[in-house]
Amino acid sequence: MRRLPITSLVLGTLLLVVAQARAQTDPLPSWNDGPAKKAIVDFVQATTDKASAKFVAPEARIATFDQDGTLWVEQPMYTQVIYCLERVPAVVARKPELKNVEPFKTVLSGNREAIAKLSMRDLEVILAATLAGMSVEEFNTEAKKWLETAKDPRWKRPYTELTYLPMQEVLKYLRANGYKTYIVTGGGQDFVRIYAEQIYGIPPEQVVGTAGGTKYGYGKDGKPFLTKEPKLLLNDNNAGKVEGIHLMIGRRPYAAFGNSTGDRQMLEYTGAGDGARLMMLVLHDDATREYAYGPAQDLAQSKVGTFTQALYDEAGKKGWAVISVKNDWKRIFAFEP
Amino acid sequence: MRRLPITSLVLGTLLLVVAQARAQTDPLPSWNDGPAKKAIVDFVQATTDKASAKFVAPEARIATFDQDGTLWVEQPMYTQVIYCLERVPAVVARKPELKNVEPFKTVLSGNREAIAKLSMRDLEVILAATLAGMSVEEFNTEAKKWLETAKDPRWKRPYTELTYLPMQEVLKYLRANGYKTYIVTGGGQDFVRIYAEQIYGIPPEQVVGTAGGTKYGYGKDGKPFLTKEPKLLLNDNNAGKVEGIHLMIGRRPYAAFGNSTGDRQMLEYTGAGDGARLMMLVLHDDATREYAYGPAQDLAQSKVGTFTQALYDEAGKKGWAVISVKNDWKRIFAFEP
Repeated sequence: MRRLPITSLVLGTLLLVVAQARAQTDPLPSWNDGPAKKAIVDFVQATTDKASAKFVAPEARIATFDQDGTLWVEQPMYTQVIYCLERVPAVVARKPELKNVEPFKTVLSGNREAIAKLSMRDLEVILAATLAGMSVEEFNTEAKKWLETAKDPRWKRPYTELTYLPMQEVLKYLRANGYKTYIVTGGGQDFVRIYAEQIYGIPPEQVVGTAGGTKYGYGKDGKPFLTKEPKLLLNDNNAGKVEGIHLMIGRRPYAAFGNSTGDRQMLEYTGAGDGARLMMLVLHDDATREYAYGPAQDLAQSKVGTFTQALYDEAGKKGWAVISVKNDWKRIFAFEP
Repeated sequence: MRRLPITSLVLGTLLLVVAQARAQTDPLPSWNDGPAKKAIVDFVQATTDKASAKFVAPEARIATFDQDGTLWVEQPMYTQVIYCLERVPAVVARKPELKNVEPFKTVLSGNREAIAKLSMRDLEVILAATLAGMSVEEFNTEAKKWLETAKDPRWKRPYTELTYLPMQEVLKYLRANGYKTYIVTGGGQDFVRIYAEQIYGIPPEQVVGTAGGTKYGYGKDGKPFLTKEPKLLLNDNNAGKVEGIHLMIGRRPYAAFGNSTGDRQMLEYTGAGDGARLMMLVLHDDATREYAYGPAQDLAQSKVGTFTQALYDEAGKKGWAVISVKNDWKRIFAFEP
């Protein structure tokens, strides 16, 4: 074995030490240097430094994150809606009278064009039929099973792998600095709770979402259980996100992350608080690596995750930082090389 | 200076060490030794010992506590109802047309007997008028101000000092062992959140209570704010406690504490889970030091915190531990000598 000269060894060790130090000091390695990354780091440093006028007491450190389009992929259709559409055959099997009733008939036809044209009202009927009328346990079991096997057609991977690595780093970075991280989603609270702990490290009690009522009752064995009711308790979208934050958290967040008009009020409410506040919007502008559906982009007319020009202008006026997927994110998914 | 003999010093040090060790090993010093105290200690030891078959993963350690009558005094009337009655003059000052309308007229009369006879429906009308129709901030400011000055007529102390010391010890003991402690109260969520952090160390996001809706809007200055609406979202009593736990926590508790029929379903649901579960009911049977309103006691007919014979029997059958205030609690309040 050829011995390396001692200077090589020393140099190698030195490089390793420098690389490690760099890895330790950069909490956001998947972000390119730029104003978005700087806004996050500056906010965390200012609010956790006791000497700073912007210091925030640990118990008040609340950060809220929209989910679809902010923490994971939402195009071409919300994962939960795909789940509900794929559940229709099982629902009809239990209630055969729905077979020839719209919108179930269209979904069963498998005609993708016709399905894509279903109205919001049609989707609501499908959601009510697939998300309610069963016990909480049954729902959890079914949804979990689906999530383990279903795959996104573009990436051919489980939906749970389509989370954004840069945002995962933000979640961890905030938590390492004493922030309690919450999901505040327009999606179903029960649905998101099934995987939020495993994929984001966010426990069920820190998931606020659109929620239906439940009803307490007893099984044949006398055991108590909860049935999911088709009654809407909280529509966690737009102003409903702020109302949901009050109901479930009871404090104003110091940081809020979103990506669409549905997140506008959450960011506005966060920004209306005193002291340092961080408001950020993910702008999907990378059609090559993901999707582009910001204002004036390919999918600008998409009903999923609408980011209007008006929202873009408001962000500029109010100092909300816009995160460009194309420019700010070095790597989007953990499975990328 | 006279020097102490060396043996005295050694003995003194030894006694100090023993006393400290005792203090360290008794997490519940205000409890008398007995089955109730033993049930708590056994539960904590079994669920936190990795070698135990009953070990509970740290993230699943959820403990829920009723508030009125479980963590603080609820007799002769819930503190929140006293607050609402005392707010009536201010409500009428803002809306003079209520002056001659029942039940406001009776409350303004100051006739205690007539006030005590007000129906549940009358109280609901008063609660709606005093707890809704204002901004969340206004409500918080008013209620906080009242809590700082109002005093319980029997003990002549702020209501916030009437918390049970033995239960404070249970809260701390559970938290020291990785449990997340929640209040699950029939009282108003917003009202309890005002003082829960200060008096119990329980943050707003861990208070589940009866909750009304809020409405997002804008002030004249353009700033967004939430208005409390008279719409009931969650009646956090009886089966509603379980529904509230699902909505706000999303996990089944491992330990649940209550004191009345309103807590029955919460204990039942907790007990229906697998593994070790702790269900406890505080029985108020000490008319001298506090109040006696268990079954067949002085105040058994009290509508406040009803503990029926049926509940007592169910506790026996299902292995729910009954805490006797008289026998299990050495000291009730921190202000006692």
